[in-house]
Amino acid sequence: MGADLVISCVPVGASADVAKVISRDLAPGAIVSDVGSVKAAVVRNMGPHLPGHVHFIPGHPVAGTEFSGPDAGLPDLFVNRWCILTPPEGADADAVAQLTAFWSALGANVECMGAEHHDLVLAITSHVPHLIAYNIVGTADDLETVTQSEVMKFSAGGFRDFTRIAASDPTMWRDVFLNNREAVIEVLGRFTEDLIALQRAIRWGEGDKLFELFTRTREIRRGIISLGQETDAPDFGRGKGR
Amino acid sequence: MGADLVISCVPVGASADVAKVISRDLAPGAIVSDVGSVKAAVVRNMGPHLPGHVHFIPGHPVAGTEFSGPDAGLPDLFVNRWCILTPPEGADADAVAQLTAFWSALGANVECMGAEHHDLVLAITSHVPHLIAYNIVGTADDLETVTQSEVMKFSAGGFRDFTRIAASDPTMWRDVFLNNREAVIEVLGRFTEDLIALQRAIRWGEGDKLFELFTRTREIRRGIISLGQETDAPDFGRGKGR
Repeated sequence: MGADLVISCVPVGASADVAKVISRDLAPGAIVSDVGSVKAAVVRNMGPHLPGHVHFIPGHPVAGTEFSGPDAGLPDLFVNRWCILTPPEGADADAVAQLTAFWSALGANVECMGAEHHDLVLAITSHVPHLIAYNIVGTADDLETVTQSEVMKFSAGGFRDFTRIAASDPTMWRDVFLNNREAVIEVLGRFTEDLIALQRAIRWGEGDKLFELFTRTREIRRGIISLGQETDAPDFGRGKGR
Repeated sequence: MGADLVISCVPVGASADVAKVISRDLAPGAIVSDVGSVKAAVVRNMGPHLPGHVHFIPGHPVAGTEFSGPDAGLPDLFVNRWCILTPPEGADADAVAQLTAFWSALGANVECMGAEHHDLVLAITSHVPHLIAYNIVGTADDLETVTQSEVMKFSAGGFRDFTRIAASDPTMWRDVFLNNREAVIEVLGRFTEDLIALQRAIRWGEGDKLFELFTRTREIRRGIISLGQETDAPDFGRGKGR
């Protein structure tokens, strides 16, 4: 008897080998999926090594924290979070429906899109945010004029939230950037261009440009809260005293 | 009878006028302080308009959230947070001790430094983090290839935390950047330089450079937690269900 549903969670670099190893035990009609943060690379690496008689439908539940591993789980980890599936063109509709039902049973909302589009969406909603969080913590660590102790003591001004993201697993994030290079570099180019325009506005005292952006960004925040992806409860000290 | 302790919280642009108005009611030996995010500009703007018989000791309690105004307060807002005082050279030691006692009574730790150094420390721990948070939310909003709805739905991947910071008061933050221009531009230059180096490492597949940074940034996070400025409790969904 072969397996009917296989969801793998292995480094993208090892995914070709995993596909080779599991393929001999896959029942005809089995569904193979994964939960990685990058999708096109997984399709490229695993796809050619899986037998034609299985349904390969990559997936990505967008949920979690800076912690990794089984101990970082919670029963409601996926509740009201989105899980993205990237079925290839011509994928079996029943298999997609079965995998959708699996994630729905865990409480997640499911959305399907192409693997390339997934990688672009995640570049802006996850990968580049992580990169700039890692980057600013590194910049702070390298400043000769401000001590590490000062950075840590006065982190409540905003920096602290970036350190949470910049404490995520180094191996996993290295692999994310190496495997989603094109989309990350594309979004990073936009980010840097916009940042340099802001820097110029600061240099020339163009307060109206700053004010316009700072007002517009509030709308996105309101949308995220109204979608139930965040609460607007004040979080002084992030859980301090609870 | 004049006032003995005045702590002002007004836009930096209005601080010169405030200094003029209050100066006629200040008792000899009174302490004048403030709670603004920028210090050198306040010294420049208010200092010349205050009478010689008062002690002008600017201050900055590093605490708060994205919310503003009296309703955003909490009894323990300042508990175990740092308040920075920037007494000018030759400031009266008794007056500094009195203001220190005031903030200590609210639960804060007090540290003294020069106004220029304060502005540099806050540029890295607060001002530039806010700017890049505003900036990435703007970049996301402007992407033609990813919809606003997708950005909001899949924000749990890291982007969400940036939107909290990017929901801060637009007027206050415009004034912060216009009044701490030099330090912000200096730190931004470092940040961008570092980010471009990271982008280059991604383009050329230099995984070891990424891994080295991602490991180093975890140390800063550990330091912040051990200083009691943050907890390491997992915060899936940031308060969802509490």
